[in-house]
Amino acid sequence: MSAIKLNTGLLMPLVGKGLWKVPRADAADTVYNAIKTGYRLFDGAGDYGNEKECGDGVARAIKDGLVKREELFITSKLWNTFHAKEHVPQLVKKQLADWQLEYFDLFLIHFPVSIAYVDPAVRYPPEWFVDGVSKVQLQNTPYQETWQAMEAIQEAGYAKSIGVSNVQGALLLDILKYAKKAPSVLQIEHHPYLTQQPLVDLCKELGIAITAYSSFGPTSFVELGMDKNTPSLLKHDVTAEISKATGKTPAQVLLRWATQRGIAVIPKSNDPNRLAQNLNSTDFELSTEQLKAISDLNIGLRFNNPVGVSPLLSIFA
Amino acid sequence: MSAIKLNTGLLMPLVGKGLWKVPRADAADTVYNAIKTGYRLFDGAGDYGNEKECGDGVARAIKDGLVKREELFITSKLWNTFHAKEHVPQLVKKQLADWQLEYFDLFLIHFPVSIAYVDPAVRYPPEWFVDGVSKVQLQNTPYQETWQAMEAIQEAGYAKSIGVSNVQGALLLDILKYAKKAPSVLQIEHHPYLTQQPLVDLCKELGIAITAYSSFGPTSFVELGMDKNTPSLLKHDVTAEISKATGKTPAQVLLRWATQRGIAVIPKSNDPNRLAQNLNSTDFELSTEQLKAISDLNIGLRFNNPVGVSPLLSIFA
Repeated sequence: MSAIKLNTGLLMPLVGKGLWKVPRADAADTVYNAIKTGYRLFDGAGDYGNEKECGDGVARAIKDGLVKREELFITSKLWNTFHAKEHVPQLVKKQLADWQLEYFDLFLIHFPVSIAYVDPAVRYPPEWFVDGVSKVQLQNTPYQETWQAMEAIQEAGYAKSIGVSNVQGALLLDILKYAKKAPSVLQIEHHPYLTQQPLVDLCKELGIAITAYSSFGPTSFVELGMDKNTPSLLKHDVTAEISKATGKTPAQVLLRWATQRGIAVIPKSNDPNRLAQNLNSTDFELSTEQLKAISDLNIGLRFNNPVGVSPLLSIFA
Repeated sequence: MSAIKLNTGLLMPLVGKGLWKVPRADAADTVYNAIKTGYRLFDGAGDYGNEKECGDGVARAIKDGLVKREELFITSKLWNTFHAKEHVPQLVKKQLADWQLEYFDLFLIHFPVSIAYVDPAVRYPPEWFVDGVSKVQLQNTPYQETWQAMEAIQEAGYAKSIGVSNVQGALLLDILKYAKKAPSVLQIEHHPYLTQQPLVDLCKELGIAITAYSSFGPTSFVELGMDKNTPSLLKHDVTAEISKATGKTPAQVLLRWATQRGIAVIPKSNDPNRLAQNLNSTDFELSTEQLKAISDLNIGLRFNNPVGVSPLLSIFA
């Protein structure tokens, strides 16, 4: 299986399965079937609200002898309400318990946004609002405190690799000033409408692997009503033409565009055929012209931006 | 004179005179004549290499009774080689001595980039390279250390207000986590080709004043060969049409577009007529349509980016 070597020396599969928006009721079966299909990387997060069920799927697959723990690569993420140094170890332990795991292969800080603590016993996942309905309440935890707590949980063995998500240039460079080692992974929104070439170049320079989320662009946001009425990339003329020329599905073309850029992908599909197609999307090569034609669709269009939750969360400004 | 009230309670003139690229030989006369013309804000920096001469111009104007010190607003900036906490007070004192001043009205961190210290006795200003010719040598000073040293020099009276420059969303929000008070000012590249609306909105939300540099866009970069062959904004059809409709010069139109957005400007002109015209650019109003026509020129085009110096300085990625 194609993989990226992280700066910890560990291998991260180039194609995995995203768990965002996988309904709790389907999550165990989804994960189990994906393992059966051949998936080894699962990309979860406390915020997705389905970690227990995903863990059930993993446990069942291991019990049934489909896979061993050490063959899997499980990613999870720390939510914004848990940035304080005392909450980072508390949450990683809780999330590992939810997954029935001893360690994560990768643990990421979900957003560079610190908001007020919510006791998981009171509401979990807490999402963006302290009382569940009203305003965002910021918390004065510098990113440095959170990152150093992440290093501590890595040293304690709770995560083999650690990284960040939704971070841009200057903050990423600032992290390097106090980090013992560069983050292993940066996970970002990345698709042909948002190619982020300067950030991709910077990470290459720094030896930080990139994982793309929302690889199909607006399609990921339709069900949330956040697609900004943007033309589908899966049905775009450019994609269709390359799909026809290569004999691959539009989804495979878009995923291959990313992986040929050296970027890992984590598509979510519950359809068995598409699930297999997405996984098997690294065995062909797009030409330089095809890669360029897709990259030329870039319009710097971002769909996932917490500024929509509060103007004080304008991390991409 | 039009002014912005900073979060320190101090007033910052809406129009000032930029000192970047003012040759050392002309700097004293330039500043003296600008004061005579009515300018009260001067925007300098250690890196501009002309602070002694600018200070001579100020001293002569005060001596000749053109102005009093307290009527002036002098801004300067800390260069990238001096981000360590022990170098911040050393440099602000050196720069005040160069200016023959007791305090700056505003002192900014020039870039969110820390590079290795160069002793001012050895080479000053040191620019980007430790030995003056070869590679950039980064220094592991977190931005937090530099900001807290800035707070200390403010408390010690060396600067009435302090701020930052060339900082974007997530890093700006991180500064607020450890800052005693939000920076008073953010100075950024800002012109119709780079309107930075999300960053402008964020600063408004946070009560941080914005100063625009390079208000005419590519024009500021022609002499450096960094204009990317971009059509002049001063000669652009949109500007020309509004210039004709308002009876104002193209430069006045572009400056007024910024100041009506609530953004301070610091144009540099050595021509006596343009010097006066630039200063007198706040006594007319552009219509909503005119403002929009200019804002619609935005293409996210940035000219001043240290990534050109080294791929490790990709602060705008």
